[in-house]
Amino acid sequence: MKNEAITSRDEDFAKWYTDVVRAAKLCDYSSVKGCMVIEPNGYAIWEKMQEILDKKFKELGHVNVAMPVLIPENLLKKEGELVNGFAPEVAWITQGGSKDLEERLAFRPTSETLFCDYYKDHISSYRDLPKLYNQWCNVIRWEKETRPFLRSREFWWQEGHTIHATEQEAKEETDRMMEVYKWFHHEILAIPTVTGVKTEKEKFAGAEYTLTNEALMYNGVALQSGTSHYFGQKFAEAYDVKFLNKDNKQEYVYQTSWGTTTRMIGGLIMVHSDDFGLVLPPRIAPKQVVIIPIGKDNEEVDSLCNKYKEQLTKAGVDCYIDNTDKSPGFKFAEAEVNGIPVRIEVGARDLAENKITVARRDTREKLTTEADTDIVTYVKVLLDTIQRDMYERAVERRDKLTFEAHNLEDMEKILNTQPGFIHAMWCGDEACETRIKEIKGCKSRCIVEDGEKIDDKCVCCGKEAKHHVIWGIQY
Amino acid sequence: MKNEAITSRDEDFAKWYTDVVRAAKLCDYSSVKGCMVIEPNGYAIWEKMQEILDKKFKELGHVNVAMPVLIPENLLKKEGELVNGFAPEVAWITQGGSKDLEERLAFRPTSETLFCDYYKDHISSYRDLPKLYNQWCNVIRWEKETRPFLRSREFWWQEGHTIHATEQEAKEETDRMMEVYKWFHHEILAIPTVTGVKTEKEKFAGAEYTLTNEALMYNGVALQSGTSHYFGQKFAEAYDVKFLNKDNKQEYVYQTSWGTTTRMIGGLIMVHSDDFGLVLPPRIAPKQVVIIPIGKDNEEVDSLCNKYKEQLTKAGVDCYIDNTDKSPGFKFAEAEVNGIPVRIEVGARDLAENKITVARRDTREKLTTEADTDIVTYVKVLLDTIQRDMYERAVERRDKLTFEAHNLEDMEKILNTQPGFIHAMWCGDEACETRIKEIKGCKSRCIVEDGEKIDDKCVCCGKEAKHHVIWGIQY
Repeated sequence: MKNEAITSRDEDFAKWYTDVVRAAKLCDYSSVKGCMVIEPNGYAIWEKMQEILDKKFKELGHVNVAMPVLIPENLLKKEGELVNGFAPEVAWITQGGSKDLEERLAFRPTSETLFCDYYKDHISSYRDLPKLYNQWCNVIRWEKETRPFLRSREFWWQEGHTIHATEQEAKEETDRMMEVYKWFHHEILAIPTVTGVKTEKEKFAGAEYTLTNEALMYNGVALQSGTSHYFGQKFAEAYDVKFLNKDNKQEYVYQTSWGTTTRMIGGLIMVHSDDFGLVLPPRIAPKQVVIIPIGKDNEEVDSLCNKYKEQLTKAGVDCYIDNTDKSPGFKFAEAEVNGIPVRIEVGARDLAENKITVARRDTREKLTTEADTDIVTYVKVLLDTIQRDMYERAVERRDKLTFEAHNLEDMEKILNTQPGFIHAMWCGDEACETRIKEIKGCKSRCIVEDGEKIDDKCVCCGKEAKHHVIWGIQY
Repeated sequence: MKNEAITSRDEDFAKWYTDVVRAAKLCDYSSVKGCMVIEPNGYAIWEKMQEILDKKFKELGHVNVAMPVLIPENLLKKEGELVNGFAPEVAWITQGGSKDLEERLAFRPTSETLFCDYYKDHISSYRDLPKLYNQWCNVIRWEKETRPFLRSREFWWQEGHTIHATEQEAKEETDRMMEVYKWFHHEILAIPTVTGVKTEKEKFAGAEYTLTNEALMYNGVALQSGTSHYFGQKFAEAYDVKFLNKDNKQEYVYQTSWGTTTRMIGGLIMVHSDDFGLVLPPRIAPKQVVIIPIGKDNEEVDSLCNKYKEQLTKAGVDCYIDNTDKSPGFKFAEAEVNGIPVRIEVGARDLAENKITVARRDTREKLTTEADTDIVTYVKVLLDTIQRDMYERAVERRDKLTFEAHNLEDMEKILNTQPGFIHAMWCGDEACETRIKEIKGCKSRCIVEDGEKIDDKCVCCGKEAKHHVIWGIQY
């Protein structure tokens, strides 16, 4: 039975998306235009994302800090490219208490400037390097059009900021953190991604180069899902961040930054969910298993539910018993719309035959097993199966929506029929990017590093091709 | 040997405090006046505070959310007392991108208004209640004078916000969360506190009453360390948050909020630290044990250090080996200034006699034990002992600085000699509070609930006393 509150995904994808967000109570609009309230169900996903990524960052030697949320205009303006890139999106604090401020303060759109300002007083020699910092915080970018999780004026993210004594070390850091994002998407979110370098036009304002992790949504639209920037010494020069190197000479530091945001929750929805609501891969689901007793006050049923819960919790599975006084059907639907990966139904009639029913959220299959089975092994195997199957289905969908184009007609045809990742050769000229953007706003997603040469000529101008690029329409 | 970078605590307490903050690298000033950078060592303490409190909140049924950081002026103004209380401290966003906003937006000084705005669309019946929310975030209050951790324009906190179907349930929540703060200070931070009700003059703007948790610093100055507010139906009326009660009638919800902040880090310093730097109770120390090998490339030494680390880590003790190429003396001093509770020194000469040296940070005692001792038991007992001893010393100091006053002369004498917690009776008249404040800014800390009647007359006016109040100078 379809969820009445959710528009069909194939009918109206945009409406389906916001319906799922609302039906699963992930986030809601607020009285501040373009800002969202992340509700408990949505925030629990973000907490789990933070927990897993934070552990990984720390294993790699990063430490967390908190920089101020405000940036004096003068400080922000020291690096010209950055400020030009972000100026149209900055929110300004101009009054404190009842007074006008002498200098307006930016609500951070990103914190490179603050980190540089801090670094410069806290390092003097190569012995003080590297500094591997990260912070979890909110940022504001004054977007015109907004969508829950995907694009909002305020969002939550982590921003890693590091400085190094050598170019090589900083570049390795840039690569390493991109690998972390890729790993996180593939292994935890069950989302296959492609990675590569952004073109000059699409890179982060002020970076020497930007690596990007690109996911493809169910509808064939691309979602940038994590970027890692190499700055070289650009900011270090602008903010005067120097150190005494091993040769006893003053040198500017080599810098990186990298970030992922709450928009990944939007990606999870648009890759995995369906017309019945949210579908979550077990490794990112805040609650992995719900146990639902059928019928009231049956001692045998309740005691088995409690036993399952105890054993599963002890084994590290996040589970709960739905003991509310709602009807079983209502509980099933709620667990479904909320994307709980596994639902265990325990009823007296089944128990008489030593049976329980187990429902998979991803395929909506109903399985039957013995009530006295080793529940921990059974559930763990099932969760692993779901995780793997979800990833494989996502790969299949992504592959189905991956195309090759050799000229503009190819591109137009693809984009007008069914958008997706479009592989095509490019001459390296920004004019061709601009021309291609005229087709439904299609942009270069990334340059594939060591990409196969699928044509000799640029897909746009026909001149000699330099790069294998993946193109697509983006959120 | 004294730490050169740290002024003596008894000589200049204020200078000592900022010296410890800087020497232990807890936080630093930023280029934004009144805003701080919380550095890795300081942020690790905040992370541990968050971890422990968050677990407790969740055990009690609370869930985390994220409300927007911006509040439209009109929304903020709906509850008059709140806005009057906070108006002088609000920072205003007036420009977004390159445009002036039609309505200025407040950077949240606290989020009651946003929660109320959210509640009103998300509850309809008593079945939807209670809602038990919390958020970890930053807030801004445009303070004139600032001090690291204690008072800064931006700070980090948790703000719990709950609504209930009955007055009794909401009042119980208000009490329960105050108990959590008290428990956290006593059991985790090793800081004894007194709790009670704020006077009308000192309560939170808009609250019906405010419970407070008050700690006393080494110098006798009080630090408000967690408050819990009962709002009754005041905000619910202003923001129209109604529900259908069990009698099928529309009723306004009963509301609470409660919060603790990064200022607790300041409290930790001012209660426990000394002239050698930071001293941390083991339960809040991000690193509880440092293992320092003496001498280089000694296989026996290194292998024992590794064995200790492995065993301690497995047993849940946060420990690390200082393997840097600094001298042992430098490593000792660094562990000391950073407040690592236990330092284990492993050297070849000692090992030949089956000995190791263990240093307590709190007392700076050096102990000797067998190298082949059961290190896990030894360290765990020692950490518990340190935790208990630190608490007891803090109680002793607090008691030493707790006084009784029966008239204004008493009060003046105490405050001019050695401030502390001053117990005295009060008639309940705000004029007397105002008069007492003239003595070095002394304020009522809290009304002791069911407090002993230590006099018949008000300490100020001599009229009939109504309340047993604790007074003090505050940060």
